[in-house]
Amino acid sequence: MDELLQDLFRGDTRALARVISRVENRSVDSLELLRTLFPHTGRAHIIGVTGSPGAGKSSLVDRLAAAYRRQEKPVGIVAVDPTSAFTGGAILGDRIRMQGGSLDPGLYIRSMATRGNLGGLAAATTDVVLVLDAAGKDPILIETVGVGQDEIEIVKLADISIVVLVPGMGDDIQTLKAGIMEIADIFVINKCDRPGVEKMERAISTMLSLAHRHDGWVPPIVKTIATKGSGVDELIVEIDRCSAFFQNDSLRSQKKKQAARQRLLSLLEERLLKAAVEHIFPNGELNRIVDEIAERKTDPYTVVEDIIRRSRW
Amino acid sequence: MDELLQDLFRGDTRALARVISRVENRSVDSLELLRTLFPHTGRAHIIGVTGSPGAGKSSLVDRLAAAYRRQEKPVGIVAVDPTSAFTGGAILGDRIRMQGGSLDPGLYIRSMATRGNLGGLAAATTDVVLVLDAAGKDPILIETVGVGQDEIEIVKLADISIVVLVPGMGDDIQTLKAGIMEIADIFVINKCDRPGVEKMERAISTMLSLAHRHDGWVPPIVKTIATKGSGVDELIVEIDRCSAFFQNDSLRSQKKKQAARQRLLSLLEERLLKAAVEHIFPNGELNRIVDEIAERKTDPYTVVEDIIRRSRW
Repeated sequence: MDELLQDLFRGDTRALARVISRVENRSVDSLELLRTLFPHTGRAHIIGVTGSPGAGKSSLVDRLAAAYRRQEKPVGIVAVDPTSAFTGGAILGDRIRMQGGSLDPGLYIRSMATRGNLGGLAAATTDVVLVLDAAGKDPILIETVGVGQDEIEIVKLADISIVVLVPGMGDDIQTLKAGIMEIADIFVINKCDRPGVEKMERAISTMLSLAHRHDGWVPPIVKTIATKGSGVDELIVEIDRCSAFFQNDSLRSQKKKQAARQRLLSLLEERLLKAAVEHIFPNGELNRIVDEIAERKTDPYTVVEDIIRRSRW
Repeated sequence: MDELLQDLFRGDTRALARVISRVENRSVDSLELLRTLFPHTGRAHIIGVTGSPGAGKSSLVDRLAAAYRRQEKPVGIVAVDPTSAFTGGAILGDRIRMQGGSLDPGLYIRSMATRGNLGGLAAATTDVVLVLDAAGKDPILIETVGVGQDEIEIVKLADISIVVLVPGMGDDIQTLKAGIMEIADIFVINKCDRPGVEKMERAISTMLSLAHRHDGWVPPIVKTIATKGSGVDELIVEIDRCSAFFQNDSLRSQKKKQAARQRLLSLLEERLLKAAVEHIFPNGELNRIVDEIAERKTDPYTVVEDIIRRSRW
């Protein structure tokens, strides 16, 4: 393991891929790996990119990554796709993206889908970001679809959150209401060669004038056409400006602590459940109880309270 | 409590509202309430309505509810909005909907947002659906935004899942890829007075011809203009047809068991974490450890493994 981690710290892509796989699959040594990595983390700039399916997040993230690579920064991308819980992977229409073994050793891309792990997607994403951070990737771009609860947890990992919108959606105020105002440090109107850009911009400005942030940051609106790369340089300027604004801000340190608390509690939850299930429901006992619940012979509340009563810490 | 539950079973709206509030707020007697309710559940038809923000889910659900009310069925609606984790409620643009004390005692509407409860939104939604079920509401309509991980758990509660799309989004195959094909029993193309309906329909048909369901059900595509109520009767015909198709299906019973297992495990997880935090981190101890993690003096993995090692079941 020592050698593997030495290779990782040196920036070796194969070592990085191996560590991430072990962490994702929760292999026996994964907790030991994470424990050893942990002191080497906390340095990377983590940038979250959120938006509905079809907003062009992937293209934008690819363009951002390319721009950072031109600055010779080692870039990590975590593309989170929580939507494939049923198939274990996207069905169709997914562009082929270079995975781990990309030709450019300074760029590492990892797609993540739900695998039905106990810990959930947010927990797995947190761990993968830690590994990338320890491997020296900086910035780390996290790409997520939509604004579900799990995703909001993922967004909380990011130092800076970019929300990607497209013209036309702004017709419907509901699109904007979706929790987006509270998480966006920067708005991007992508595909801005389409009609409706001004309308979208007005809608965002109106929402911004009504919302109030306590930290004094005014989220800028950047217009891009990600497929052509236009607007990406301006976006990077705004990211840098935002980053500088928050460099010594106590709110950000508060946010980091919040993320640490979240990770601690979700890990505790995951491990407690795993340990409890192993100890309390050996050999198919769980299936028997589930059958009884489905037949209304017992109920989950009684079952769980019994377990809690018997537990000792 | 007995009187409260008797009133609930009788269909009293105030009793229903009180029980739901207690369950949502996890008041001290909430588990006892749920335990007593539980044997009276499992009868209602649960219909999930999922789609992006702005797809017109709310209007469609309102129209469906009105149609069921004309059939004199007691209807429950649970509108889940996972996007307001930050403010505790939608900021703007949310239509004012009649809550609990609606003029029609046969219709009960509950909006749910994340409140940062340990158990999460899916758990809370499950419990509220149980209460509505025990109160005799049938059908129960669950309205959710998007397809995050938490929402997929919510969708699993439903006997029938309706996915609402709008023309124009179909231009982008990514919209469809988003986990939707696996969960949809019925597709609705809403706002079908807009251009692009045929294109959307073709996109869905193509996806359907490529996906394969093991149960033999072919998801129909229904075109609606929810704001005008058109297509809603056809949608109800398709819901009934789907319901009849799956009446004695072992796959559905499997699905019910899966939901029971999910609820058991998520409740166990919630209670274990709560009990552990109370016992292990009294009086601000948690904050101290979080600070240490944020400062990289310790790591969450070590902290959690220590706890697990000391636990007894």
